[in-house]
Amino acid sequence: MSENSAQSAESLGYKAKEAFDASQLLDTTVRSNALLAIREELVSRKAEVFAANEEDLKEASVLVEQGKLSAPSLRRLALNNDSKFNGIVKSLEEIAHLPDPNNKMTYAIELDDELELYRVACPIGVLLVIFESRPEVVINVAALSIKSGNAAILKGGKESKNTSYILNKVIQDALSKHTELLPHLIQTINTREQVSSLLSLDQYIDLVVPRGGKALVQNIKEHSKIPVMGHADGICSVYVDEHADLEKAIRVVVDSKTDYPSVCNATETLLLHESQLKNFNNIAKALLTNKNPVTMHLDEKSHSSLSQDIQTTYSSQIIQAKDSDYETEWLDYEISVKVVSSIREAIAHVNTHGSHHTDCIVTENDTNKNTWMKGVDSAGCYVNVSTRFADGFRYGFGAEFGVATGKTHARGPVGLEGLVIYKYILRSIADKGHIVGEFGDGGKSYTHKPITDNRQPWY
Amino acid sequence: MSENSAQSAESLGYKAKEAFDASQLLDTTVRSNALLAIREELVSRKAEVFAANEEDLKEASVLVEQGKLSAPSLRRLALNNDSKFNGIVKSLEEIAHLPDPNNKMTYAIELDDELELYRVACPIGVLLVIFESRPEVVINVAALSIKSGNAAILKGGKESKNTSYILNKVIQDALSKHTELLPHLIQTINTREQVSSLLSLDQYIDLVVPRGGKALVQNIKEHSKIPVMGHADGICSVYVDEHADLEKAIRVVVDSKTDYPSVCNATETLLLHESQLKNFNNIAKALLTNKNPVTMHLDEKSHSSLSQDIQTTYSSQIIQAKDSDYETEWLDYEISVKVVSSIREAIAHVNTHGSHHTDCIVTENDTNKNTWMKGVDSAGCYVNVSTRFADGFRYGFGAEFGVATGKTHARGPVGLEGLVIYKYILRSIADKGHIVGEFGDGGKSYTHKPITDNRQPWY
Repeated sequence: MSENSAQSAESLGYKAKEAFDASQLLDTTVRSNALLAIREELVSRKAEVFAANEEDLKEASVLVEQGKLSAPSLRRLALNNDSKFNGIVKSLEEIAHLPDPNNKMTYAIELDDELELYRVACPIGVLLVIFESRPEVVINVAALSIKSGNAAILKGGKESKNTSYILNKVIQDALSKHTELLPHLIQTINTREQVSSLLSLDQYIDLVVPRGGKALVQNIKEHSKIPVMGHADGICSVYVDEHADLEKAIRVVVDSKTDYPSVCNATETLLLHESQLKNFNNIAKALLTNKNPVTMHLDEKSHSSLSQDIQTTYSSQIIQAKDSDYETEWLDYEISVKVVSSIREAIAHVNTHGSHHTDCIVTENDTNKNTWMKGVDSAGCYVNVSTRFADGFRYGFGAEFGVATGKTHARGPVGLEGLVIYKYILRSIADKGHIVGEFGDGGKSYTHKPITDNRQPWY
Repeated sequence: MSENSAQSAESLGYKAKEAFDASQLLDTTVRSNALLAIREELVSRKAEVFAANEEDLKEASVLVEQGKLSAPSLRRLALNNDSKFNGIVKSLEEIAHLPDPNNKMTYAIELDDELELYRVACPIGVLLVIFESRPEVVINVAALSIKSGNAAILKGGKESKNTSYILNKVIQDALSKHTELLPHLIQTINTREQVSSLLSLDQYIDLVVPRGGKALVQNIKEHSKIPVMGHADGICSVYVDEHADLEKAIRVVVDSKTDYPSVCNATETLLLHESQLKNFNNIAKALLTNKNPVTMHLDEKSHSSLSQDIQTTYSSQIIQAKDSDYETEWLDYEISVKVVSSIREAIAHVNTHGSHHTDCIVTENDTNKNTWMKGVDSAGCYVNVSTRFADGFRYGFGAEFGVATGKTHARGPVGLEGLVIYKYILRSIADKGHIVGEFGDGGKSYTHKPITDNRQPWY
């Protein structure tokens, strides 16, 4: 369907890099204006978008009937209603008005008289973003990529190919008609084969962002020559410490598990200090009797501490835990429970079996709060607060590109700031220019004098 | 030789992560003290280090005689002299006294009353560093890893195995005798097989840093499941713009090429605006007659613009350029020359054929300075200054871990700041803790109020 489907990966990559390079010479205001132009184009072509989406929905309904696609996937595919459509229109406006993450100075120093070094935030380059069914992600990812100064190649789910195609066309048409940006700053592709080939083109592509299930992310990590940013798992946990307040523990555990269990920041594991076993009946009851009742995978200690009454009444929701349960992302009303004998054991469990996403301690003890914040090797180290807060919008970023659980570049919820890197500008404003041969043995020394006024590298 | 040579990669990785996790709970002062303890231990065991190094040198001399090792490699291997030894002793002291890159706050915001979010710099985790012959790199890399709060597994050249072994032992003994850090915070290995196995252990290792030739770096990038930071090539260039000052151009070109040609920040390509062809005799002569005469690989235009006199006198240093010359890192007194008809063409050349390391424009025109700084997609974008300045010490970092030409995490010379990432601390100081269920439709809204006082997340 897409006119890009027949294109070689080489040509897609080349054109993306060409569009990126060209865009760097334009004023940054062109990017916000581009998003507003896309917004106008999208509004004026709503009927076309709905028609394409209905085509996708029709084909997908057949797959659902054949048992090849799930009903929730079909629902996620729908974009032919005003509420969803207006949502993406509004998001374009909001992203256009976010602060520019580029050109921020993070280091400025004189190396010598009239020799100035600046470290300045700049875009990464060409992003390859792979996501699953929801077609509105095309607009969201394109908007964040443009706003942050990057180019992007997008691969959506094959079920949304008609919708993706028209959305990509809307974007490219808006760019060519109303901006100086090259239209192939944003390109969409449909086939897995194209993705495989693109993963080796590190001369064109700078970062791969898989947004999808664990299998997708692991597969990409294994086959990519290009850096990958993403998260495979969201195995978050809450640790109820020896010094926890019981009421707080129940609130935090219940919200972390049940507020919205199908997302990565929902809690999957409850760690319980052994001194809290006396309170476990209360905590367990809050989960077992929730309006969405939770199934609990219990280790021996937690299980045997439960009252006979609870064990009998809720027997269908109580399961003996296997080792693998502690590395399982339930994404449902299910939780693994493990008893530990110290905060150190809790931290070791989280660092070994968790996914470095978000982990919370419930405690009133300040020393233990510090130990948790320092010892837990996760993107989010929380104290007395639901793990569900781990989200770019809640963090105040205005938009979220994804969540990263790696340990380089960006970590946790990734907003526009996670889509930039920096370059060093070194400029000599001396009459003769600066050369290294004049420094060292018997020559000049570096002054390393911080630049504290608002001097800029630009002319 | 090393006691680690028989260890499985799995066990090395596990022990490194264990040592890293344990180190996070200790006060950061332990790290500087550890470097001073290593310094003492090293000084007291100088004779042992010299003896081990002499063993390596003896074995390597045989290889040189057999033509299996180069004479410069043998020289780089030597550590049995006071000058080199005192150098590494001093570097331990210097690194100990550098500022701590950790615990810096880069974002602080209230999400709600009594709900505080902080982004705090923290170590990356376990580093795998692969380098070539110079054994003193063991001390340097270990010191930077410890200072930045990371653990490291080091693989040096097999020719330096005895020296590496004793240096590693010195480090581990100092850590066990004088600090609370676990000795296997730093481990050395010798075999390529161990490296291959480690490259798949992303549950233990967070970052791979190859410091060596292009073949090594490319091989590692292709086989690693773990993020890789490094640079394969240093193809730096100087572009002499239409509006260049000739004297400045000659100074910058000569220094960039000849100050020290065997390193990555030396210039390999000279780009010349066609209007500068009239000055090319002068520029060429400065290179051809340098005290270390430069061989020039010229395109047709630059070649035919040279006076007959120069062409005849220096014929042995003048070669017709092939396409591949513009992607060659000469690392010697050789340079490729290409004529371009615009600054845009120069930028396109650099972005396509360069290595995103460091590229300089020589010009007096402010618009062109801006165009260069914005359009060149390199770690270093320079104006009227030698490319040889691209170096962590010169940049004022106090130490250099390596140079990165990728576009994520760290770029350009990498100092201690390039060895850290961040984590988000979210703490509720409210009576009941914060839960997400209270926000949204009909509930609370996020306040997103920046924290501007000096509040810290720690207790």
